[in-house]
Amino acid sequence: VLFLQGGALLQFGMVPMNFLRNTGKAADYIVTGTWSKKASEEAKTQGKVNVAWDGKAGNYNRVPRQDEIKLDPAAPYVYLCSNETIQGVQYPTLPQLGDVPLVCDSSSDFLCRPVPVERFGILFACAQKNAGPAGVTIVIIRDDLVAKSPSDLPSLLNYKIMAENKSLLNTPPTFAIYFVHLVTNWLLHDIGGLGKMEEINKKKSKLLYDAIDASAGFYQAHAEPSSRSIMNVPFRLADAAFEEPFLKGAAACGLVELKGHRSVGGCRASIYNAMPMAGVEALRDFMLDFAKKHAK
Amino acid sequence: VLFLQGGALLQFGMVPMNFLRNTGKAADYIVTGTWSKKASEEAKTQGKVNVAWDGKAGNYNRVPRQDEIKLDPAAPYVYLCSNETIQGVQYPTLPQLGDVPLVCDSSSDFLCRPVPVERFGILFACAQKNAGPAGVTIVIIRDDLVAKSPSDLPSLLNYKIMAENKSLLNTPPTFAIYFVHLVTNWLLHDIGGLGKMEEINKKKSKLLYDAIDASAGFYQAHAEPSSRSIMNVPFRLADAAFEEPFLKGAAACGLVELKGHRSVGGCRASIYNAMPMAGVEALRDFMLDFAKKHAK
Repeated sequence: VLFLQGGALLQFGMVPMNFLRNTGKAADYIVTGTWSKKASEEAKTQGKVNVAWDGKAGNYNRVPRQDEIKLDPAAPYVYLCSNETIQGVQYPTLPQLGDVPLVCDSSSDFLCRPVPVERFGILFACAQKNAGPAGVTIVIIRDDLVAKSPSDLPSLLNYKIMAENKSLLNTPPTFAIYFVHLVTNWLLHDIGGLGKMEEINKKKSKLLYDAIDASAGFYQAHAEPSSRSIMNVPFRLADAAFEEPFLKGAAACGLVELKGHRSVGGCRASIYNAMPMAGVEALRDFMLDFAKKHAK
Repeated sequence: VLFLQGGALLQFGMVPMNFLRNTGKAADYIVTGTWSKKASEEAKTQGKVNVAWDGKAGNYNRVPRQDEIKLDPAAPYVYLCSNETIQGVQYPTLPQLGDVPLVCDSSSDFLCRPVPVERFGILFACAQKNAGPAGVTIVIIRDDLVAKSPSDLPSLLNYKIMAENKSLLNTPPTFAIYFVHLVTNWLLHDIGGLGKMEEINKKKSKLLYDAIDASAGFYQAHAEPSSRSIMNVPFRLADAAFEEPFLKGAAACGLVELKGHRSVGGCRASIYNAMPMAGVEALRDFMLDFAKKHAK
């Protein structure tokens, strides 16, 4: 486990700088939304990219079925983003992706549930969703991959050198790392572990998806049921004219930051680990109430 | 002004990645201690380096005289470190370095005194000495240099893309940046500006250097008088057998973190902006007292 400086975007560059550049091969990227798309673009600055699946045709409303993923067996790695914050698309379970090392950006669902760590070549997550404040990224990387980092990279961009120095080559972002320590202690001792956290997250997200599904189309979830995120719930009001009154009414009840990301519009409830059940219940109640008043 | 993720070490890589790599030219590095040496080594991963001066012969105890610096007029930039924390060597004023863009690592003396910002091509400083907590680096970079960043770098390593996005391409290290805001407000309104801060720092460091110089050789400063840092005061006890009792006695008086960096040994008083005059006076008094007791 490494604690590296900067956010997930730096990993979007470090992964291909360390493992794609100068290989002559193409890395596989599974594109399920904004962040995996951006990661594939960053990788193109360093080498060839094979888009193994792209959800664009469905406006990124689901993860791929197993048989849709076109892998290149010679790829140095296959890359996916386990949860897309903007589209609210999350893998319910990991797909089977062969023997090629699996690289996963788990920035927005790290610590939301247990994960089979042994199946990843690299699992990385910036802290600022479930783990701590912005400024540090946690990277879990397999020893055989660390050993492959090339020597012609600056030290801070080289996994091997950072691992040899136990993430302490220079002063690390100490406050952010201390905060991660407090959060993981909270998860372990106050919540009772990641299994318990997953139960809570499933319950929280179900409250909102149930309200959406029971609204007879007044609210519409962006993601297909099979791929719905338990962290981010993006939705639209079927009649877009109600969107502004909805956001204003919600804000008046203290329910804020519900506007969808500027790149997709609509509404979005981000319900990371730190959002209590009561916050989600209050939003659910407001949604039911608003629909009752305005549905035809 | 950019607020970039990570520490100064990332800039050691970013500067040559952006402005040396693929130029076929050699960058000039003035090596006055550990950090400029390390920066020159990081640059070698990206291209050729011309060491314009190296203080190794004097064990890095001074900055170069103007006539000792051998510049390459074709260099893409000339690099120096304005204050070497480990050797306690600081430029009293900037040398004349021609028309080549000047890159300065000011990590350990940023905000300790006014600087002629217009003379730098790039002035960078990690926050964790005088500006805030670890995890953010302030980069002041000239517009014509920003425009030269190549397009084949990952976005977070590309000054141009970071500048176009006003340092907000992704979530920046928000807490660290907020802290920098508080510190600069303190400097401006409580201290009264950088001129005032410089006066205080000169006074603080003079207390220690005077005690060393008046000790008849019991204490010995590492740096020559012309190059002595007002931030870091490394010194030795002429009789090394007294070093451990000195450090233990100091610690017993609440004067801690006085052991020299492991790479050079001896003692070191780091007296950054946040160290109050009273702290330096207490150390000076302990030093006088210890010498009185143990000097022959």
